Amino acid sequence: MRRLRVGLLGVGVVGGSVARALTQKREQLNAAAGAELVLTRAVVRDPTKARDVPKNLLGTDAEALVRADDVDLVVELMGGEEPCRTLIDTALTHGKHVVTANKRVLAWHGDALFAKAAAKNVALRYEAAVCGGLPVIAPLADDLAANAIRELRGIINGTTNFIVTAMAAGGSYADTLAEAQRRGFAEADPTADVEGIDAADKLAILVRLAFGAAITPQKIFREGIAKLEARDIALGRELGYTLKLLGTARLAATGVEARVHPVFLPTSHPLARVDGALNAVQVVGDLCGPIMFSGQGAGGDATASAVLADIIHVARGALNTTRATRDLPILPMGETRTRCYFRIAVDDVPGVFAKITQVLADHAIGLASVLQREPPQAGSAEIVLLTYSAPESAHAAATADLEKLSCTRAVMARIRVDAPDEHRHA
Amino acid sequence: MRRLRVGLLGVGVVGGSVARALTQKREQLNAAAGAELVLTRAVVRDPTKARDVPKNLLGTDAEALVRADDVDLVVELMGGEEPCRTLIDTALTHGKHVVTANKRVLAWHGDALFAKAAAKNVALRYEAAVCGGLPVIAPLADDLAANAIRELRGIINGTTNFIVTAMAAGGSYADTLAEAQRRGFAEADPTADVEGIDAADKLAILVRLAFGAAITPQKIFREGIAKLEARDIALGRELGYTLKLLGTARLAATGVEARVHPVFLPTSHPLARVDGALNAVQVVGDLCGPIMFSGQGAGGDATASAVLADIIHVARGALNTTRATRDLPILPMGETRTRCYFRIAVDDVPGVFAKITQVLADHAIGLASVLQREPPQAGSAEIVLLTYSAPESAHAAATADLEKLSCTRAVMARIRVDAPDEHRHA
Repeated sequence: MRRLRVGLLGVGVVGGSVARALTQKREQLNAAAGAELVLTRAVVRDPTKARDVPKNLLGTDAEALVRADDVDLVVELMGGEEPCRTLIDTALTHGKHVVTANKRVLAWHGDALFAKAAAKNVALRYEAAVCGGLPVIAPLADDLAANAIRELRGIINGTTNFIVTAMAAGGSYADTLAEAQRRGFAEADPTADVEGIDAADKLAILVRLAFGAAITPQKIFREGIAKLEARDIALGRELGYTLKLLGTARLAATGVEARVHPVFLPTSHPLARVDGALNAVQVVGDLCGPIMFSGQGAGGDATASAVLADIIHVARGALNTTRATRDLPILPMGETRTRCYFRIAVDDVPGVFAKITQVLADHAIGLASVLQREPPQAGSAEIVLLTYSAPESAHAAATADLEKLSCTRAVMARIRVDAPDEHRHA
Repeated sequence: MRRLRVGLLGVGVVGGSVARALTQKREQLNAAAGAELVLTRAVVRDPTKARDVPKNLLGTDAEALVRADDVDLVVELMGGEEPCRTLIDTALTHGKHVVTANKRVLAWHGDALFAKAAAKNVALRYEAAVCGGLPVIAPLADDLAANAIRELRGIINGTTNFIVTAMAAGGSYADTLAEAQRRGFAEADPTADVEGIDAADKLAILVRLAFGAAITPQKIFREGIAKLEARDIALGRELGYTLKLLGTARLAATGVEARVHPVFLPTSHPLARVDGALNAVQVVGDLCGPIMFSGQGAGGDATASAVLADIIHVARGALNTTRATRDLPILPMGETRTRCYFRIAVDDVPGVFAKITQVLADHAIGLASVLQREPPQAGSAEIVLLTYSAPESAHAAATADLEKLSCTRAVMARIRVDAPDEHRHA
């Protein structure tokens, strides 16, 4: 039986689970791989700590591991941009296959690294980088390869889905974030999650794969959840919509839309029902139609499931995980079209309604529905509007003009709505 | 560039879509395959009819196609047991790869055919045989290969899901079946769908793949939907459950449960929300946890998406689509454990309740909840019971004893419930 010698960079929660499986599931994994998978080296920061790797395989020299003669495949599970980018690059240069869970490196440096892997005829696989244990990368690269992907939307950050799910039950942003931190779903510094940075990294990876577009996350419009109010989530539900933080990409006539922001989805949409820390991706292909995958996007064993699958794929000779790239620009956010939900605090005086709806009309934005609520305080009123689809630039300009109206106290919220214009809200 | 010469058996709705894609998507498919995919032959019953294949490639001799020197890969889309089984067998014998959508042949003869494909070192791929355009086979075979699969449940027949979804809205079985036939979801003779025969074929394929068990559909317990009443679906919903026809398989201590029958799922279960003609499969792995896939289980283009993916897999050298088989018996239905919903028509006289609940106690079946309804007619009453989990044999024996009680007019319905014992019903 052929041997595939594996070197492991990082033996934390995921790496430990990978190492344990290589021992405890040896027979199953070797049968699936059609090769003997052998862990030959592992690198950790503190070799006195790691427990799932035999001591004699442990070291601290990552630079040596990615060049070592006794390593055919490098599993990179250290995370973060550097030194990981350099280590992956070096491993590929030395003709080694790479399996990584590193969304950051792939999102920002994927174009160059995939080109190098192809030139070296080695694999650069990354199932674990998006949605943890849920297979998304291989299905897109392989099982849907005959499709032109038209749309892709995903709940690709479990932390923020936990928070917006809890906010839908009435909690404030601050309280639910604290609860997420207490339960280990959110980090002490939650910026990367709540500002959509993590989601934008993953979306960049998905867009490159699904549409064959060259991309880095800086081309992705990004708005987080930190300013969301439970009140808007509740009002949206009255209108028939559920709030999610989505990564969305869509093939348009002149390029690809790619954006991360809070979205109101019709409550009947499959993604609207994916709650808590789960991840889910919906893909719409020209042949297969809409397909959804959902599952655990994090956790040591789940992520290890994806890493091990990639190792098995490599052992079987499946190196390719990209689509042919093509010249397809990422559209500026202003050119994307969405519907919008507005909540506007106004003076409770006659003529307000006419002024506000006139602003929308001036920007050629159609009005789908209107909800006026009992004033939260005397003298003021609150108007909730739902528009029909229009360019982001029009919605943004209308928002600025609404703010300028003397009767407007504030545009309290503008949330994009992902629904066809003909969608009937309750 | 290498050539992969494809011979097509059957140019109907799916075959036509495959043939069109091979022409219209030539560049994309060849890039994905890393090979030039060339249709060299196609066989149809009536060569004056087929439109999506050049006339000079059309013939009627299937036996010749599966032996032809100018065919490397046979795509079998004729359907039905014979002559397909023989044709696939002959193609494998002649060292040709086979891609098929034929659930019937694989369910009943898969064990022998996969063994032959392995012996000949050729592929026998079948993504399109289960859930049409939804990738399920390759994810199970490849992307979840590191997992021990613990549970698998699926809505794997779109016709019956259309019918039970419509019945949940209040329609009778007869009316919704007629509607399904009118809309082309059900055939004139609906037996294979409504009796669960089609679902059992697909479940056999999934069980063989997920658990590595040798199986044919005759080992699968099967109960259809023809006797369902909308009344029970409505009562179940009051208790917090949604009715689905599921294929269910579960790893138990002594073997694998495999069964097709109507199931009450908690309304919060992801599968409970898959409505209409959609297909969905939930898989629970020891590493990845629960994962769900949902999408279109039928249709020419969707099924072609799966067939084309298999062709691409073969072109890339991915031949393996099985797990190592092991000695794992399929458990007799009597040994499986479920909860049950009962609706019992009884005489409206004192003491009935005590007698009925005593029968359950005699069979060591715990009672989770009870619902007594206003009598539909004077003198009679209707009792709805929900039990805790117990062996099927105990539930069956209790049913027989309930029927024998003098106060019982009839056990109107017994429907198995797939929920943990601690599930809180509304």
